[in-house]
Amino acid sequence: MKFILSLKDENVAMDHEEAFGALGSALQSFVNVDDQLCRTIIPFPHNPHYNAVALKKYDRMSLADRFSELGDKLTPPERDVLEAILSVQTGGTMENSSFWDLLRAWALSNYNWADYLSAAATYKLRRGQSHFARCMFDEAANTGRLDYAFSTPVAGIKDVGNHTEITSKSGAIFLSRRVVCTVPLNVLHELPFTPPLSPLKREASVLGHASRAIKINVEAENPELRSLGGLAHPPGKVTYVFGDGTTPTGNTHIVSLGTVPTGVGLQPAKDIKEISEALRLFADNMEITRLVFHDWNKDPYSRGTWSWYQPGMATKYVAALRERQGNVFFASADWATAWRGCIDGAIEDGKRVAKEIADEIKEGYEF
Amino acid sequence: MKFILSLKDENVAMDHEEAFGALGSALQSFVNVDDQLCRTIIPFPHNPHYNAVALKKYDRMSLADRFSELGDKLTPPERDVLEAILSVQTGGTMENSSFWDLLRAWALSNYNWADYLSAAATYKLRRGQSHFARCMFDEAANTGRLDYAFSTPVAGIKDVGNHTEITSKSGAIFLSRRVVCTVPLNVLHELPFTPPLSPLKREASVLGHASRAIKINVEAENPELRSLGGLAHPPGKVTYVFGDGTTPTGNTHIVSLGTVPTGVGLQPAKDIKEISEALRLFADNMEITRLVFHDWNKDPYSRGTWSWYQPGMATKYVAALRERQGNVFFASADWATAWRGCIDGAIEDGKRVAKEIADEIKEGYEF
Repeated sequence: MKFILSLKDENVAMDHEEAFGALGSALQSFVNVDDQLCRTIIPFPHNPHYNAVALKKYDRMSLADRFSELGDKLTPPERDVLEAILSVQTGGTMENSSFWDLLRAWALSNYNWADYLSAAATYKLRRGQSHFARCMFDEAANTGRLDYAFSTPVAGIKDVGNHTEITSKSGAIFLSRRVVCTVPLNVLHELPFTPPLSPLKREASVLGHASRAIKINVEAENPELRSLGGLAHPPGKVTYVFGDGTTPTGNTHIVSLGTVPTGVGLQPAKDIKEISEALRLFADNMEITRLVFHDWNKDPYSRGTWSWYQPGMATKYVAALRERQGNVFFASADWATAWRGCIDGAIEDGKRVAKEIADEIKEGYEF
Repeated sequence: MKFILSLKDENVAMDHEEAFGALGSALQSFVNVDDQLCRTIIPFPHNPHYNAVALKKYDRMSLADRFSELGDKLTPPERDVLEAILSVQTGGTMENSSFWDLLRAWALSNYNWADYLSAAATYKLRRGQSHFARCMFDEAANTGRLDYAFSTPVAGIKDVGNHTEITSKSGAIFLSRRVVCTVPLNVLHELPFTPPLSPLKREASVLGHASRAIKINVEAENPELRSLGGLAHPPGKVTYVFGDGTTPTGNTHIVSLGTVPTGVGLQPAKDIKEISEALRLFADNMEITRLVFHDWNKDPYSRGTWSWYQPGMATKYVAALRERQGNVFFASADWATAWRGCIDGAIEDGKRVAKEIADEIKEGYEF
């Protein structure tokens, strides 16, 4: 299978290498604000605010601002392809997606497009995310010092000085010397904290990050679709598809992503015809046998997908989001320093907070 | 200050950017065995043996073999500069330094020379290595569950089935369910294990890695030497120098490295004139106020510097070196998978073994 570019009036089938080369070249022009591929803008990718002057300048910009700045330096097809792929990566619009978050991700990807695209779509966990989470849970449980409760929605988090009381909706009360809150940015303001969430944390959470992409896992009978890839612009119901693996029965697992605005309304459980038609834009013989879908945007515990900040948010909120409030610490990929919005970012921020608490409790604070 | 290239009959003073550009370009030609900057050779830098065909081919080669293969594709100055910098990096000769270890380091450095040179010489710990080690020690000690002894040379390590007895030279006996041995490769065979070290481990240790560089920290009065850089070929007593910082009194800290064969005999405590003359090749007005030196090659607890394998060692020994023997586990940067010979490698391999032991003890093995 080829890589299918579906642009306005034409459908182009390209070799994968050709497609990624063209995409990479356009992406490189897009981020290359310093003629050094961003090395001077974010010289230390794990310390992205190191160059404060650059932060001030580029954090204000949206992706749309950067497109305007480049004007006709991008050809119309370059612009279309880039808008399509960026809309998938940010999950937002070109207007509400921060240019800074792209520069950050680019720096983390070794300042080159091959690694940037690989980081986004190539690497995955051999046994999946659930298995990975289970490994971490088992390691904690194996210490013999873990108590836990799942499926216990929270009705209140009350800091009473030397400890914190968490009340569940069913009425159970949990006492804790310290609390680690890992609730996502877009949900944080809905939690009933006493004393209340700090004004900047609340403001950031109400504003929210931009990402509202949807992802539908598709199982199709056609084995040749394993090597399918495709981008559509202007975005249809599905903006990006790729063959992600072969199932034990020889079917193909296809990942399809819909973007703002047209893709986010997809409800495959209610209307399978809509998604089928959108997918057949890329492969008109696709024989769908199964769809797996969860609407993270409507899920009250996420209210969005991976984090992509809006313009200005990094400057204004990221430090505040990382601050503790009394006994409550806040750890999330959504305000990680490096791989924000990614599993690595969740691990990074979890480690930060775990170390802070371990040090503090060791220093003799008493319950 | 400029970057001083001291080659056979000429001393050339170059701008730093020019020097690193030339060096980078030569280095890129040297490692580019697949016309894709090694991406097909080691596609996953943290899993360097993934491409077994490439391992088989390139692990056999020394750096000298690669120079022969390239023949006149490198100009004589390119070859000189490259030999000088590589002799510093490997700490060995071109004949006994593995080409594979260079490809590994290159892949880890994002397949580009700017990151490769930065990884080798730019990044450092803000408060130094001793402070970093102290942080780790304090974290362990703060658990309240750490017993420790320093300066206690070992006379015997005897595995007696369900536990291990370690006898110190002073006669004290330590009993342990599991032992983590972090003794460097070049020393390992000298330890009195019962039962004895496995044949492959022993063979690897007797053979040893190639690195015998020496490093002398120099404090000089001249503030302008902060931006000194220099390489000499053929190597004199000092092969590489660079200004590494300014001391609180305004003096300059210069790092100087000597290489095999001429540099390793330096004994600054015995003959300050010899090192002074070698350094003045790069800056004839250098006013030395202090030297700090430790001879890791003569130190019975290291017998070499950072690890750089000889040709063929990765294929033949690395898996064997990582194997446990009964209750004894072996963790060292010298057989780490990724950043072998570096602090990151030590952390990587320590984590590997710590997890194995934690899992095993949890599973109910009894003392």
